[in-house]
Amino acid sequence: MEFFFHPKAIAVVGATPNPAKGGYAILKNLQNTYRGVIYPVNPRYDQIEGMTCYPSVQAVPGKPDLAVLFISAAQIIATVEECIGKGIPGVIIESGGFSEIGRDGESIQLQLSVLAREKGIRIWGPNCMGIVDAKAGHVFSFTDPRVLSSLLKPGPVSLVVQSGMLSAGFVVDLLSHETSGFNKVCSIGNKADVNECDLLDYLMTDSDTGVIGFYLESITDLRRFIGIYEGHGRSKPVVILKGGKSAAGARAALSHTASLAGNHRILSDVLKQSGILLARDFHQMIDLCRTVEMVKPRAAKPSCNIAVLTFSGASGIVASDFMEEFGLQAADLNESTRTRIEAFFPSWMPAANPVDVWPAMEQHSGKGLDIYALALEAVLQDPGVDACMIHTFAGFTRVRLNLEETARLSRTWEKPVFIWVLGEREKVLSFQIEARKLGIPVYHELYRAVECMASALNRSSTKALAGEDEAATIPSVSPKALKGAEGILNEQESKLILKETGLPTVEEYRVETARECADVARRTGYPVVLKGLEEGRIHKSEAGLISLDIRDEEQLLRSFRELQDRMSPGSPVLLQRHVKGYLEMILGYLRDPQFGPCVMAGLGGIFAETLNDTAFALAPLTLPKAIRLIRSLKNQKLLSGFRGNPPVPVEEIARYLVILGNLGAAFPAIREIDINPLVLSDAGPVVVDATIILEQS
Amino acid sequence: MEFFFHPKAIAVVGATPNPAKGGYAILKNLQNTYRGVIYPVNPRYDQIEGMTCYPSVQAVPGKPDLAVLFISAAQIIATVEECIGKGIPGVIIESGGFSEIGRDGESIQLQLSVLAREKGIRIWGPNCMGIVDAKAGHVFSFTDPRVLSSLLKPGPVSLVVQSGMLSAGFVVDLLSHETSGFNKVCSIGNKADVNECDLLDYLMTDSDTGVIGFYLESITDLRRFIGIYEGHGRSKPVVILKGGKSAAGARAALSHTASLAGNHRILSDVLKQSGILLARDFHQMIDLCRTVEMVKPRAAKPSCNIAVLTFSGASGIVASDFMEEFGLQAADLNESTRTRIEAFFPSWMPAANPVDVWPAMEQHSGKGLDIYALALEAVLQDPGVDACMIHTFAGFTRVRLNLEETARLSRTWEKPVFIWVLGEREKVLSFQIEARKLGIPVYHELYRAVECMASALNRSSTKALAGEDEAATIPSVSPKALKGAEGILNEQESKLILKETGLPTVEEYRVETARECADVARRTGYPVVLKGLEEGRIHKSEAGLISLDIRDEEQLLRSFRELQDRMSPGSPVLLQRHVKGYLEMILGYLRDPQFGPCVMAGLGGIFAETLNDTAFALAPLTLPKAIRLIRSLKNQKLLSGFRGNPPVPVEEIARYLVILGNLGAAFPAIREIDINPLVLSDAGPVVVDATIILEQS
Repeated sequence: MEFFFHPKAIAVVGATPNPAKGGYAILKNLQNTYRGVIYPVNPRYDQIEGMTCYPSVQAVPGKPDLAVLFISAAQIIATVEECIGKGIPGVIIESGGFSEIGRDGESIQLQLSVLAREKGIRIWGPNCMGIVDAKAGHVFSFTDPRVLSSLLKPGPVSLVVQSGMLSAGFVVDLLSHETSGFNKVCSIGNKADVNECDLLDYLMTDSDTGVIGFYLESITDLRRFIGIYEGHGRSKPVVILKGGKSAAGARAALSHTASLAGNHRILSDVLKQSGILLARDFHQMIDLCRTVEMVKPRAAKPSCNIAVLTFSGASGIVASDFMEEFGLQAADLNESTRTRIEAFFPSWMPAANPVDVWPAMEQHSGKGLDIYALALEAVLQDPGVDACMIHTFAGFTRVRLNLEETARLSRTWEKPVFIWVLGEREKVLSFQIEARKLGIPVYHELYRAVECMASALNRSSTKALAGEDEAATIPSVSPKALKGAEGILNEQESKLILKETGLPTVEEYRVETARECADVARRTGYPVVLKGLEEGRIHKSEAGLISLDIRDEEQLLRSFRELQDRMSPGSPVLLQRHVKGYLEMILGYLRDPQFGPCVMAGLGGIFAETLNDTAFALAPLTLPKAIRLIRSLKNQKLLSGFRGNPPVPVEEIARYLVILGNLGAAFPAIREIDINPLVLSDAGPVVVDATIILEQS
Repeated sequence: MEFFFHPKAIAVVGATPNPAKGGYAILKNLQNTYRGVIYPVNPRYDQIEGMTCYPSVQAVPGKPDLAVLFISAAQIIATVEECIGKGIPGVIIESGGFSEIGRDGESIQLQLSVLAREKGIRIWGPNCMGIVDAKAGHVFSFTDPRVLSSLLKPGPVSLVVQSGMLSAGFVVDLLSHETSGFNKVCSIGNKADVNECDLLDYLMTDSDTGVIGFYLESITDLRRFIGIYEGHGRSKPVVILKGGKSAAGARAALSHTASLAGNHRILSDVLKQSGILLARDFHQMIDLCRTVEMVKPRAAKPSCNIAVLTFSGASGIVASDFMEEFGLQAADLNESTRTRIEAFFPSWMPAANPVDVWPAMEQHSGKGLDIYALALEAVLQDPGVDACMIHTFAGFTRVRLNLEETARLSRTWEKPVFIWVLGEREKVLSFQIEARKLGIPVYHELYRAVECMASALNRSSTKALAGEDEAATIPSVSPKALKGAEGILNEQESKLILKETGLPTVEEYRVETARECADVARRTGYPVVLKGLEEGRIHKSEAGLISLDIRDEEQLLRSFRELQDRMSPGSPVLLQRHVKGYLEMILGYLRDPQFGPCVMAGLGGIFAETLNDTAFALAPLTLPKAIRLIRSLKNQKLLSGFRGNPPVPVEEIARYLVILGNLGAAFPAIREIDINPLVLSDAGPVVVDATIILEQS
């Protein structure tokens, strides 16, 4: 990939003197910014902008290591083949006319993918805006040559975007608003060959890049993406804004698991579990990037106690509301800290967090006391404080915050400081520039400030996550009952397979006659449950094929007859012990068409439809990852001894998830497994109903 | 209140030539901005800033109609009395030293309240920054005289804030960033007399004010506030940011209703139901204010179908994600609209919403076609489109959006247009200024744009809400069973009272002996429920005093014995028909210490603790308001025929709420009523358990 970022010589195919064309802008940008050799290529011109123009790639005298193409789609294949012939290792195709315009373009793009795969040439694009490298100072893009290059300011944020706008207009907006500097901005377009995985891999070891932000509409290979991130030891933060949450839509789904498995759903769960941050909006993504780049992930300390220094009661109050929303605690200042603060506070004012420094500033006005610094040192030295948020106003001398002193204290006490700043437009701008230079994250909106602070402080340490990557130690099992099975297995068949893998299943008997039914019930003891097993039917409840909580023989026989009336003749009936549980969960497995084997855990029963609280992970997975999956469910209070119930045995259920994942991964014929419900009872978890769906041979 | 806003002459008590003091800044601001007569008052000076200074209010030659005070708290009472003696109708006390510093200050502030009440003088403050009126151009505040007055730009937004920062620094920030213009900015401080109600009342009829934004930490009298807003026909939008959501904290609560009734909870429910918008953050509040001021509430049309015009696929996709989040639909463009659009689209490109105009702009580049205008007219004329959002880039000629044409089309088709703009800093600024002049709401962040658009489009029409204000027609009932009752009533006593008011209660009998119990059960028929009634105990479940779903006499007698064992001797047992329902709800009444009579409806049973889905309203209330209260619960799908159940009879339950509210309002001795659960069964709703808590005499 190095030739894309640091080429020694570039051929510009489709270079032109017409300023309205992309081929002109690419050349002009190179002339303005690139220090290597440039070879314009276009058979129609001898000279462009004072440079010799060559009729073909072949005719170029030297050996460029990169070609940037801006030509019609019809000419693309021949030109790429020419580049291959010339021994050029990489091309960037910036012109459009490919998969984005439909069938015809798609077939050309497919040929590009094949060329890349078979000939080893790397193809970036097509239909993209190439690369902007603010550190190297060069622009390999057809963005307006008058705009971007004059604004370029290097910074640690690298962007990889599947959108031209985000690599051009948006970056101009961000640079001119001084929101962030950038290192590399990569527009990857239609991803015929080079995709987000290649760039993640490259940028994870790029020493100029401190954080990588992605805007993606699709992730070509999620498993590879996660593998690369974890393989690089998660050594720098990655933030992703995923567009098209609703796009995938509902597909025809047989199992509950599959109906929940929207593309975005799996994607976001898996990314989060890997320690990748998800962004909500464009600017917010950049704010998040620069925050997590500045604030290193903390060691294992779980507490997030924040001290707030403010010049206004109101902003202290609203910040506290936001902190609560994001699960951050307002720090309790200890007595010696309070005494320190009260030394410079007005006598009537007790020290409390948020620390309102304004009255002290008024009282000591003109005495040259730096109240912010005194208060900051006081709170940072308090062992009960993990981080500090400062509210200030730029350009009003009476509330002046000394940024250098702030940075020094933050370094000394090794605790991050975040700033929310108001003020006159130009003064806010210069404040922001200075803060960024000093490595202090600063924000203009309070909610954003707290949101980013929470993301930075809650970011798991790399070490903790890496511990979960170790290989699964739970061995795979090959259930005999799986042999020769295909299509939709009924409840009994499904549970037999699960039982062989070691999952606890409900005690049940298949009965054919009323008499047999009554005999079995007498043996198992009441209450019992009857279920009608009709070939190919999954949703028994809706078809009236489940009869619950049967207490005596009379009720049993009536229910048996009713079930028989509702089914085709000869369909068997399943008699189960009625398991009274305190909670129902759903566990599932799914071979997703895009992401492959996945497992899912969620709250079941009535909660399945109301709380909609489920989480997915890629399978196979390790036990710690399965535990974290269950711990990522939102309604943890239901799992931890709700209403006097025992706590859910999370590790045990995590083990089932690992088993489901192993099973599905080992048997590609398994499309879906749905355990619904897994009943949590005082005697332990038990699979009460399940469906396995296999490929039809 | 007129003398506060348009005084003819002002006395400045505490005027001083010392530029470090508030009394100097107030005088200087008046000199710079106020065109009426100014009387500096301070016994220590003869002249200040070239003006004659008077030793006392009494000594002032003319008759000022406003006094602005910046003096120590110790001098305040005497000075206000002097003002009363002089016949001055209003004073603004800007200096501090009152309730914010504790006990001593509080007692002086209390005297101010008494003076106002008894002598009729209106007192604004203390501890506030007074008034800034950008329309009149004057500043009655000790804000830095060099800053604010030079920035003042009039606009339709008036602010009322309980925070000095928000009326000074924040306004400077907003004005210099061109976020919004302002009409009046009122800092109300400690609210010894003049409060948010007075200002709401004044500003609702102030023709220069188009929208009122409040930042409040407390609402002195919510009932009066709502009454004023509704009394003025909700004729202009009101936006409130309430600080201190978590401040009230949990108080000792006996009933479920009371434990849910956090101060912020009731407040926000009641405000929302009245049509007032709640803001989340400071800047967001201003964005919301200027949006709803520009976009008039729509007639009863419930649909919110949005067309998006964009120059980037990515922003179209992300905007669609946000729209889904806020319940807005992407409009389906009809065939003739698509044909219109395809006329200027590249041939390969089908018209779809979001409408990506960039390829058409590229294709027609240099031909002078206004693609935005063509596309905008096409979507606005489509009857399936209710509003349009445009994404654009300021200062890039190829995606130039003609704002005047945009405004014209929006007016012609009477459909609002919202703009998200990116671009270079200065160009975004001038774009924003121009858009605001033309009445088009514009935003720099996409999420904010969609959020504000949704608030504006979902805003209920004034007419629709006004229909709900009519007086309740359900008569109050005086239950005989209430006579002489006090303290915590047991379940049976509570339900007897509710039964008298017309609520359906479960069939139940008080039984004393096992034999009686069995006799009654034989009469009512199984299954039954037994409950132990122990004096003063509310939470029977936790004490094991409820035995559900008893199916036969053997079980009944065992349960009866168990209950007796758990209670003090002689405690009676209640036998009820076991009501099998499809949903449980909670209804409640509460005399809130601050807000007075309130009713509450929510989801009950297991949902009470997991979904936490409840809503409060002030009582007494009208039937339409009670219906809207129930309709404001988040999990409407549970109410409308969930899992094959019948839909919940919302109007019937609303009637119970009205009855509860009437009952509580008529009998101040009632502190709390808790109906938990109201069981919804096929036979209709029935009160299965209830507790009424009365004041102890």
